[in-house]
Amino acid sequence: MEEIKVGLIGFGTVGSGTAQVLYEQAARLEKRVGASIRLVCVADINVDKLPEHLTESGRITLTKDVNDIFSDPEIGIVVELIGGIEPAKSFILKAIESGKHVVTANKALLSLHGKEIFSAAAQQGVEVGFEASVGGGVPIIKSLKEGLVANKIVSMMGILNGTANYILTQMTDHGTPFGEVLRDAQDQGFAEADPTYDIEGIDTAHKLAILMSIAYGMHITHEDVSIEGISQVEPIDISYAREFGYRIKLLAISRNHGDHVEARVHPTMVPEEHLLANINGAFNAIHFTGDMVGNVLLYGLGAGMMPTGSAVIADVVDIARNIMTNAVNRVPSLSYLPEHIAPRRITSIKDLRFPYYFRITAADQPGVLSTIAGILGRHNISLESVIQKSRRQNGAVPIIMRTHEAEEAAVQHALTEIDRLDICTGATVKIRILDETGKD
Amino acid sequence: MEEIKVGLIGFGTVGSGTAQVLYEQAARLEKRVGASIRLVCVADINVDKLPEHLTESGRITLTKDVNDIFSDPEIGIVVELIGGIEPAKSFILKAIESGKHVVTANKALLSLHGKEIFSAAAQQGVEVGFEASVGGGVPIIKSLKEGLVANKIVSMMGILNGTANYILTQMTDHGTPFGEVLRDAQDQGFAEADPTYDIEGIDTAHKLAILMSIAYGMHITHEDVSIEGISQVEPIDISYAREFGYRIKLLAISRNHGDHVEARVHPTMVPEEHLLANINGAFNAIHFTGDMVGNVLLYGLGAGMMPTGSAVIADVVDIARNIMTNAVNRVPSLSYLPEHIAPRRITSIKDLRFPYYFRITAADQPGVLSTIAGILGRHNISLESVIQKSRRQNGAVPIIMRTHEAEEAAVQHALTEIDRLDICTGATVKIRILDETGKD
Repeated sequence: MEEIKVGLIGFGTVGSGTAQVLYEQAARLEKRVGASIRLVCVADINVDKLPEHLTESGRITLTKDVNDIFSDPEIGIVVELIGGIEPAKSFILKAIESGKHVVTANKALLSLHGKEIFSAAAQQGVEVGFEASVGGGVPIIKSLKEGLVANKIVSMMGILNGTANYILTQMTDHGTPFGEVLRDAQDQGFAEADPTYDIEGIDTAHKLAILMSIAYGMHITHEDVSIEGISQVEPIDISYAREFGYRIKLLAISRNHGDHVEARVHPTMVPEEHLLANINGAFNAIHFTGDMVGNVLLYGLGAGMMPTGSAVIADVVDIARNIMTNAVNRVPSLSYLPEHIAPRRITSIKDLRFPYYFRITAADQPGVLSTIAGILGRHNISLESVIQKSRRQNGAVPIIMRTHEAEEAAVQHALTEIDRLDICTGATVKIRILDETGKD
Repeated sequence: MEEIKVGLIGFGTVGSGTAQVLYEQAARLEKRVGASIRLVCVADINVDKLPEHLTESGRITLTKDVNDIFSDPEIGIVVELIGGIEPAKSFILKAIESGKHVVTANKALLSLHGKEIFSAAAQQGVEVGFEASVGGGVPIIKSLKEGLVANKIVSMMGILNGTANYILTQMTDHGTPFGEVLRDAQDQGFAEADPTYDIEGIDTAHKLAILMSIAYGMHITHEDVSIEGISQVEPIDISYAREFGYRIKLLAISRNHGDHVEARVHPTMVPEEHLLANINGAFNAIHFTGDMVGNVLLYGLGAGMMPTGSAVIADVVDIARNIMTNAVNRVPSLSYLPEHIAPRRITSIKDLRFPYYFRITAADQPGVLSTIAGILGRHNISLESVIQKSRRQNGAVPIIMRTHEAEEAAVQHALTEIDRLDICTGATVKIRILDETGKD
């Protein structure tokens, strides 16, 4: 039976899960692939010993020198699972230079340096598999590149970060404040010690940039995405959202307007009957609208040892099949042939229109509402409802407003003006409301 | 640019959608595939003229003789979209014999004669694409065969028939009786004139059989599936389900116990917080549990001209890519290599245990409940709750019972005994309750 040899860089959580399954479930894969996919070398500077069940065969070597993988002519596929920008980028480029196919879960790297990496791979005639970079084990990338190949992707909306969704779900279910949920999540190991990427929407933007690249055939980095995180969301916002029939979710959103496309990540009030409003805990989901297929949603765990390992192995198998049939690059890395990757203008979020939720913190004194309403009116922002319920201890009250559709630029100007008022004692929180009417 | 020529048999709803997109969106596909995928011939006995936009090129011919397609040596891929068993089966076998690849949406045929068709294709070295046979445009088959290739599929649960789900949704939202919703759906063209396959669960069983074939690598027909439809469900059952925190859905369910597997289709009370409880209207969804990936759900429209056409074209593109790279059959048709397709025992539903909902129709007289409870007790069926609310006009009352987990065989015996009682004036309705505790 043909053997496809694999080298693994990074024996952390996902790396060890991937290694375990490649080793223990070799027979399962052989029955489907018709070849033996064999992990032969693991490189990791922090690991001194592989677990016993992996070494008992004596056929997997452990090294601290990653060059042992690049220089082994028998290794056809290199799996990079160390994450981060460097040295991951150098390792991937070195693997490509050495004529090896690459599988990676590294969304930060692909989002920032994808163009360079995919160009290098194209030049060397090798593949880069990255299913594991978005949505863990859910076959989102394969579905987009192959299953939906006949479609123009009209829009994408996703919950792509499990930590942020877990925090919002806990806040929704128990009314716990953001900081407290975050600390709990950190204590339990669900959230990183530095949670910035997760809670500030940066990780979500990495993933959106990757999806946009393949959905539209364009180069884009997460730096082109308009990003707002969830750290300003408070339990009071969540309970008003509930009252209005919404759930607050951190969404990645892109709508395709042909020559320009939207690219944004922000907390969003999602109508409670929408499936995305019902994706809870650490789960991820992506909602595609295609011009043929209509609405499609894919859902599952977006992270974790085994779910991410499942996607890594799917990519390894895909590449192994291409190696066996001499069909390398039968599906272009970015879905479109390299010569059809074209730039597209990113719509400035300032030009977009949304209905909004505002929570304004103002002094509890006569005339406040008329002053604020006056500013909004001058900026052409019309109100759907205003609630000014309970008096607070320090004399400040939250004023809750919902607007009709208004232009983002106008909203930004108006809120800057409002927050400058002496009577406003805290920054206004604004949350965009998902309005699907007539948009799909 | 290389040309891949396609012949289409059946110019009905899905056929005309597929033709339209292949023709109008040729450029879109070329940018991704690097070849021209060209529809050259349409065979249909009921069509006299193709729509003008398809014929203006003068390059698509219409024929009433399907042999024009089989005998054209330039046609590489034959798309079968006439449905039903014959003549579809003969056409597909003829296409395979002529060395052509086949793409079909015909779940009834594959479920019944899949073994013969896939064997013939293997012998001829051609492919059979059938993504469109399950879940319309949602890439369920590709996800199962490729995206989840590393997984042992532990269970599958799906809403796979849009008509049945539409009827149940209307009954749930408006309390309308089954017959009335069905007539409305027929009037609006959502339901067939003969809706038996849809409402009696047969279509759902066709699809479950196909999914089981590829998930487990076994041959199975829908005749091996235990099937119950939804025609006995009444609004009163739906409203009690609601009261207990459930929604009633027609589910296809298979659990994998290794040497034996479950295969059943029946109305099911699904806990309202489960995503499947929230799949409404004509939408389909399939929920896979894999040993690596955990729970994954795929959702979308399960039927219709364009959604099904999207899946047909995805298969055509997949095969075109394999033709171009000489990689035909790089992924085995049934996910496992033919030599690893093995029989597995189907667990008899009688041996399974579920919690149940019963609606017993009995005379409103003293002693009835004790007689019924006595029978259930003798069959080791223990009750969780009993409701006997309102007296009905004719002296018969519905007695609503929920049981703890009980054996299906015992339940069947007990209900036969109960329905034979003089005091019981109508057949008992039983609905199984989905109990996910400890099963995933």
